[in-house]
Formats: sequence, structure tokens, C-alpha cells
Amino acid sequence: MTETPRQPTPIAIVGVGKIARDQHIPAIAADPRFELAATVSRSGGVDGVENHASVEALLEARPDVEALSLCMPPIPRFNAARAAIAAGRHVMLEKPPGATVAEVLTLDRMSRDANVTLFATWHSRHAAAAGPARDWLAEKRLTGIRVDWKEDVRKWHPGQDWIWRAGGLGVFDPGINALSLLTAICPVPLHLTSATLSVPENRATPIAADLEFSDGEDLTAMAAFDWRQKGGEIWQIEVETDAGTLSLTEGGARMFVDGTERGLEDPGEYPDLYRRFGDLLADGASDVDPLPLIHVADAFMLGRHLTVEPFED
Amino acid sequence: MTETPRQPTPIAIVGVGKIARDQHIPAIAADPRFELAATVSRSGGVDGVENHASVEALLEARPDVEALSLCMPPIPRFNAARAAIAAGRHVMLEKPPGATVAEVLTLDRMSRDANVTLFATWHSRHAAAAGPARDWLAEKRLTGIRVDWKEDVRKWHPGQDWIWRAGGLGVFDPGINALSLLTAICPVPLHLTSATLSVPENRATPIAADLEFSDGEDLTAMAAFDWRQKGGEIWQIEVETDAGTLSLTEGGARMFVDGTERGLEDPGEYPDLYRRFGDLLADGASDVDPLPLIHVADAFMLGRHLTVEPFED
Repeated sequence: MTETPRQPTPIAIVGVGKIARDQHIPAIAADPRFELAATVSRSGGVDGVENHASVEALLEARPDVEALSLCMPPIPRFNAARAAIAAGRHVMLEKPPGATVAEVLTLDRMSRDANVTLFATWHSRHAAAAGPARDWLAEKRLTGIRVDWKEDVRKWHPGQDWIWRAGGLGVFDPGINALSLLTAICPVPLHLTSATLSVPENRATPIAADLEFSDGEDLTAMAAFDWRQKGGEIWQIEVETDAGTLSLTEGGARMFVDGTERGLEDPGEYPDLYRRFGDLLADGASDVDPLPLIHVADAFMLGRHLTVEPFED
Repeated sequence: MTETPRQPTPIAIVGVGKIARDQHIPAIAADPRFELAATVSRSGGVDGVENHASVEALLEARPDVEALSLCMPPIPRFNAARAAIAAGRHVMLEKPPGATVAEVLTLDRMSRDANVTLFATWHSRHAAAAGPARDWLAEKRLTGIRVDWKEDVRKWHPGQDWIWRAGGLGVFDPGINALSLLTAICPVPLHLTSATLSVPENRATPIAADLEFSDGEDLTAMAAFDWRQKGGEIWQIEVETDAGTLSLTEGGARMFVDGTERGLEDPGEYPDLYRRFGDLLADGASDVDPLPLIHVADAFMLGRHLTVEPFED
């Protein structure tokens, strides 16, 4: 007896920007469980795929589109997610899952009430080293954590004006990737104890941030996020333990224990995200963890805001 | 058959400042279910009550003290709460329950693991009008909300330097009272959509804040917090509905429907807090709702930070 293969789930991409073109569309194309059925974009969609001007237009025109993957900036995301959930569609959210923590909690509640899948993604949790690092740290005593997440904003966010406006998170847009990975691998809960946010005098969001976390006992985690990096990005987490030092580099693509590299399977972050979304849909489950965004909100609340020199794009 | 009256629970106050003297100590004195057994204060305790220099010293010297009420500023509160929970004591937290949202989640988890009661208090939720307002709004369609929370910081926070330092919350220290009351009475969940925080150029925290919330549909809530108020404080919430206007004034002590005052029972906010804590202890239950603090963190994250004229105490 053979199983009848399930028809691929028709999915729409909402917000056809850099991340959608670089990651989501190739990942969907490679995944037999999904089929890109439509896009929503005001600035042009994808060749050969039906495009709509708004989420509302898509929801009305295409009742067959079971799932929406929301790739637009965080501020307009809530209304799109709300409309999709209200229309009984499953929703996948790019990170961060909202412009506020409260709206993520609201979407979580709405999706439960509507009995649809909500997947608040953190792509860095799907880095090749995430699972192996979590497993390696699980039984060890941690004695120190150092996070460096530094990149050139001109290279990675060219012309993305929204990241510099209030609510755009600034350097926490990449920094939240580090926090999502750290919170996934660290066996003890951490909370922020101090923060300095460096905000260019002509911008509303930080270009750099220095954070200190504690587990309430002896463990301290230091994190430095910086968008002024030149000469190649540094995306790494180093964890000292009683049984050696774990290093994750290249955003978690590579893993070292006491300097020796471990071999890793690497399906790619976004292919693995859609694999996970497919599993959630098959199970009728959701996955919503606002903790990385909570740490960012805590940093804005607890942090000292420092004005630094203007930044011109 | 008569019930044997339960012995009063020995409780300690940690942090003997203005709020402890004005509110907590009289409320405990008036409640037959509690007995003030000790205090922790570096600057002097209460006449006739044993005082300790630190939480650790109290926990070691007085294993009979079953519960601690933590009244110190939010930043040192986590370590005290952690130590108390680790020693198997029940804990009541003044508002806000922490300097960060993450630490509230950590304490919540710790208290569950230790099987002790954790009560993260929001005293404004015990205002006389809180319950009646919630009940009155429950079945109505809300069309607008306006919150004004304005007081003279020199009168209400004399010499409290910590409120002006990073993490001290500034005008959100009183403003969070409004948010705790609003979130308790509003039948629909709200999230912040914009905020302006006015920060004096010589301080780290805002002296005023203007907030806008939405339920994602037609309902908008506007809130104005201001510490520069002269001539009497304004602590009020006005809610327009399809069946009239509800007004709460004096921090929720009084309630009006279309201008007509409703009679209310008023045990007092702090006596009612200790009544609730007594009930939680009797039931072996906890009450931890971080939502008001989440809204504040969201405001710092999403809000525009505006520099305003210096403030001298």
C-alpha cells in the first residue's frame, strides 16, 4: 500500500523585498509541501506568479491560499496577520514577529481562537549549529557568554529606511537573531541587567548596543551589536563551560569545541523554516515564542540611550 | 463545631520607604491574617519590629517568616525575590514586578518550580471602581478610550533619584498604574501603535509620554502621562461605548456613567491587595501578569524619544 502524496499547500508571500527574494521564494520553490500561489506587493511581484495589491484583495480573490508568509517590515505586519487569521488562513511571520510584544500575544491568542497555525519564526534558530549547540550545553555548567554580532549596515540593509525609524529596532534587527539563537541554546533563563544603546543624532534607532545579561547567579552574558563594522561581518557566540568552550561562528553555521570544528548537517535556515512550518501545519500546531523580542524591549526600557554621531546612508 | 482560627502568617517588609510606611505597614497591621514579623532596611526599620540589614540575613535568622513583601525599587528586587523563593518563602512584589519583563517570567517559573506563591501586585487593579468598571464594560462595544495620568513629580516622588536613572521608568512609574487598571477593565486586548517619550536632557527616563493603542480594529486608546502637572493630580480613564460613557477618576476610586456617580464599596487598594495575597496563600495559588510592564517596554521600544528641557528636583 502506498500513501497518497498530499497536495502541496498553496502559500502566498506578502512583502516581496530583499528577504523574500533572497530566502523565502527559493525555499518555497525547493519544498514539495508548498506551492507559491500568489504574492502581495505594491512594488512588483515575481515573474509568473499572480500578484495582489493588498492582503485583503488576496484573501478575497484566493480562498484556496491556505497559508500566508508575511515578509514585510514589522509595523504593518500586525494588520496583515490579523486579517489572514480572521479569514481562517495559517500564518508564518518573519522575525521580529511584531512591532510590539503585546501584538504578538494578541496574534497568539487570535490564532488559538481561530484554530489556525501561527509560526513566529526566528531563522537563526534554524542555523546548522543551533540544535547541536543546545544539546552540547544541556548538561554543562556555564561560566560565561560572549556574543558579538557586527555587520556593515550599508551592505546588509541598503536603503531600508524603516529600520531607522521609531519601531524599526535599528541594530536590534540583526541583534535579535543573536538573541533568538542564544535563548534557544542556553539551558538557563537570562534577563538583562544593563544596556547602552548608541543612537545616531539624526536617527531614531540604535546603530550599536552593548548588553549585559545575568541568570541571577554567577553567569553573565555580554553582547555587543554593531552596525559600523567594516571588513566582514562577525556573527558569533562563545560560551565558556566547565567542560570547554563552545564557539558558534557565521551566525551559527559553524560550531567549534575548544577550537576544533564539529561537522554539521546544514539544510539551510530558510529551507528548515519551511520544513518546520510544514510540520506545524501537518500537526495542527503553532510555535510562538516572543522571548527574543521581550529581551529587545527590555533593552530599550532598561538601557541608557546615548546620542552618537549622525549616520548618513 | 467551630473552625480553629489559622495563626496569622508572619510576613516581612523588605525596603522601608515611602510606599511601605504609607501603605504596606498600615494594611498589614489591619489584616488579621498577617503579622509584621520583621523588616529589611539599611536606613532604619519600624519601631518595635526586628530589622535586618539584608534579605539574606533575614532568611537565615528567621525561618518562621513565611512571606516577604518586596517594596524596594525594581532593579534590586529580582535578587531579593530569587533568594526568597529559593528559601521556600512566598513573595509579594510591589509594582512594577521587575526592571525587565524577562526577569518577571523567570521569577514566575522559579516560583512554580519551588511551589511557593508569587503575587505580582498592581495596586490600581484594587481601586474601588476596577471590578465594577470591568463588569460594566464587559458586554459593551467600545468606541474610544482616553487616559490622563498627570501629577507633580516633586510632590509624589520627592528625592527618589532612582526613578530618573535608566531602568527607573520615569513617568511610567505612575503611568503603569493606569495601564494596569486599563488592561484589567478593557474587554479587548490592546497593543501600542505609537508613542512619544519626552526625556529631560539631564535625565535618563521620561517626564512625559503620549501613547496610542489599538485593538487592531476601530478602537483607539490615547494615553497622556505627565509629571509636570501643577494644581492637583489627574488620574482618570474615560471609555466611550455604544451604551454611554464610563469615567473613572481619582485613580479609580470613583466611577461615573454618563456623568452620574455610582456608589462603590472601597476597602482601600492596599488592604485589598493583602486580602488577595491571603487568599492566594490559602489556595496555594499565584498571580503574575506582566502585561502592564510589557506595554511599558513596548513604549520604550516603539516610541520616539524626544529630548526636552532639563528637570531639577
